[in-house]
Amino acid sequence: MTPVHEEQRQFPVLDDCLHIGGIALTRLAERVGRTPFYAYERSHIASRIALLRQTLPAGLELHYAVKANPMPAVAQLIAPLVDGFDVASGGEMKIALDAGMSASQVSFAGPGKSNAELRSAIAAGVLLHLESEDEMHRAARAGDLLGLTPRVAVRVNPEFELKYAGMKMAGGARQFGVDAERVPAMLRKLGALGLDFHGFHLFCGAQNLSAKAICEAQHLSVQLGLRLAAHAPSALRMLNIGGGFGVPYFPGERALYLPAVAEGLQHTMQMLSAESPQTRLILELGRYLVAEAGIYVCRVLERKVSHDRVFVITDGGMHHHLAASGNFGQVIRKNYPVTIGNRVHAGARETASVVGPLCTPLDLLADSMELARVEPGDLVVVFQSGAYGLTASPIAFLGHPAPLEVLV
Amino acid sequence: MTPVHEEQRQFPVLDDCLHIGGIALTRLAERVGRTPFYAYERSHIASRIALLRQTLPAGLELHYAVKANPMPAVAQLIAPLVDGFDVASGGEMKIALDAGMSASQVSFAGPGKSNAELRSAIAAGVLLHLESEDEMHRAARAGDLLGLTPRVAVRVNPEFELKYAGMKMAGGARQFGVDAERVPAMLRKLGALGLDFHGFHLFCGAQNLSAKAICEAQHLSVQLGLRLAAHAPSALRMLNIGGGFGVPYFPGERALYLPAVAEGLQHTMQMLSAESPQTRLILELGRYLVAEAGIYVCRVLERKVSHDRVFVITDGGMHHHLAASGNFGQVIRKNYPVTIGNRVHAGARETASVVGPLCTPLDLLADSMELARVEPGDLVVVFQSGAYGLTASPIAFLGHPAPLEVLV
Repeated sequence: MTPVHEEQRQFPVLDDCLHIGGIALTRLAERVGRTPFYAYERSHIASRIALLRQTLPAGLELHYAVKANPMPAVAQLIAPLVDGFDVASGGEMKIALDAGMSASQVSFAGPGKSNAELRSAIAAGVLLHLESEDEMHRAARAGDLLGLTPRVAVRVNPEFELKYAGMKMAGGARQFGVDAERVPAMLRKLGALGLDFHGFHLFCGAQNLSAKAICEAQHLSVQLGLRLAAHAPSALRMLNIGGGFGVPYFPGERALYLPAVAEGLQHTMQMLSAESPQTRLILELGRYLVAEAGIYVCRVLERKVSHDRVFVITDGGMHHHLAASGNFGQVIRKNYPVTIGNRVHAGARETASVVGPLCTPLDLLADSMELARVEPGDLVVVFQSGAYGLTASPIAFLGHPAPLEVLV
Repeated sequence: MTPVHEEQRQFPVLDDCLHIGGIALTRLAERVGRTPFYAYERSHIASRIALLRQTLPAGLELHYAVKANPMPAVAQLIAPLVDGFDVASGGEMKIALDAGMSASQVSFAGPGKSNAELRSAIAAGVLLHLESEDEMHRAARAGDLLGLTPRVAVRVNPEFELKYAGMKMAGGARQFGVDAERVPAMLRKLGALGLDFHGFHLFCGAQNLSAKAICEAQHLSVQLGLRLAAHAPSALRMLNIGGGFGVPYFPGERALYLPAVAEGLQHTMQMLSAESPQTRLILELGRYLVAEAGIYVCRVLERKVSHDRVFVITDGGMHHHLAASGNFGQVIRKNYPVTIGNRVHAGARETASVVGPLCTPLDLLADSMELARVEPGDLVVVFQSGAYGLTASPIAFLGHPAPLEVLV
């Protein structure tokens, strides 16, 4: 059987029109005032976080990885609902602090922090996830200059890989973190430099849909963190074990089974609290909090037929949503789930390809999908678009206006 | 033998430092004031155009496809050197007109022109390359509203494909242009609507390094244009046969042999002037005019070793130069030509991977290349970066500052 997309049930359909944030899509498009746009639903994000709080073990801390969706209104919404923010640049740190997240709850990771970023992070008082020995020395020098003691954790590149991850970030030679075997020596220097040591960051990979693989990596991460803590200059206060929870994008992919992840985490937390009761365990999630809460919406300009193939030509495309066009790390292009937002179920259907206004065949939002037969003015919806959408796209490509973003 | 990159000889090396626009790269970096940046060389662009004028047949018109590099200063430089500009959006049309190109020499192609863009293009008086029957009707309505007669050409989707093209844009079902067999009927309507017909646009594909394939496509395009002209409401004034001239990016690729293209064009122009002496033949080049004139420059933050593999960590990366990271339409990632701009030949060498500051393994500018052994502060140069660089990249990704652009 041909693999199909998971049914998109997160947004209700009334009068055959998708509703998001309780608003009919056609009306929302009028309110936004122009297409294309991204819309993110407040209640979906809040319920996702509530579900995690309810399902995952008590005491586990939940962080939001701002990179998934740095829209200031989204950060503002999430800030009071989680225990901290993780940022990947000075720009994201600004967003986190502007959103009201306390600097003591912000951590800053990334393999290429500039000296200016290190300085500004130390001035802010955020936790630096050190990615190399060299960065440790640069942070120490910046701290000396400022007369401040940098708060630091060490990002570890473990020996093991995260199985089934959409993107592997650990195991073997990596630009991320410090090879595990070199961490003990680094910790000795870190103590000698007088840095304020908090713990470790272990992040194995992203976009994983296998609860078993996630649990295994989490368990191994905590074991490794505990082993390395024996070399630390002070007690292990925190362990950030990353996230990597995936969402289903493509035909055949199924949602991550959260209760299984919760069970594994329970087991891992028991081990941690038995061996190191004062250590906080931090789960860092980006995509999983926001991806399914968001849609990308563009308008049909024309229905065009070329050699019996139907093209739906829209005012949006790969310049706004690179991942949906298949050009963001995918080796083989697959379709995101797509619908015609104002003709979800009723009327004639046909196989059509959704393209944008760009002069390149890469500009493809849906390749030969079964969709409602469109009229000009209809609204094409790309689901699963709340993470790595707008900011992961080449919006200046071919000089079209940037899409808008709304939180509803 | 392992394929290697074509030698990069366009910029001189003095005191082991690359010079662009007559300026040492280290000094240029100080002048720009920060890294990363793109630098484009005026004299390289001007000599490339001069070489084309000298090599290609007299009478052939040369257009610049602004999408390749829409930096206003670049457009301004090129405007007096070519016969016209081709634009792909209302935004690019503004750049073309601001650069001083006469509206009568600007043509506007693209499969998803909005009604607002059609109206603005008609108001400006540029030539519309109609991509569908529907667009023809929309243009006619916009012209009626404005009391102006739209100047139009018809973009044709021919039956044949461009062999060996990096990107095919014609043949079979396409979102671009009107299927050739439907053009005669469309031309009858076009006459009835009173549109001002100029000619045809046939663009088969981009990034082709085979002179033979290009000449064959050009010849077939002109033949098809002449055949279709029999159905036109007025004389065939122009034929835009696209461009598609490639530049060598990857190991094993060799520069297009221009004299062979010139010979083919000579033959094609003879056929055209014999059959339709009043028809202007237009070659539309983007990448070929600017790609090799440009470099992307970023600074080394750290030299990092992980499990005996060397990573050069820089302040630039895929968010600034998506194509060089292998995520812009490439199925298999290959390296662009890269060097250490201030240590081109001398000193120790080693195999290293150049990465950026992003928290993703996609952020890879060079994968295991032989390079000079770097020190922090060194300048990494990615060659062949003058086209589809900055504007084809997700610059907002992870909240880092945008790179600058200079024309020197």
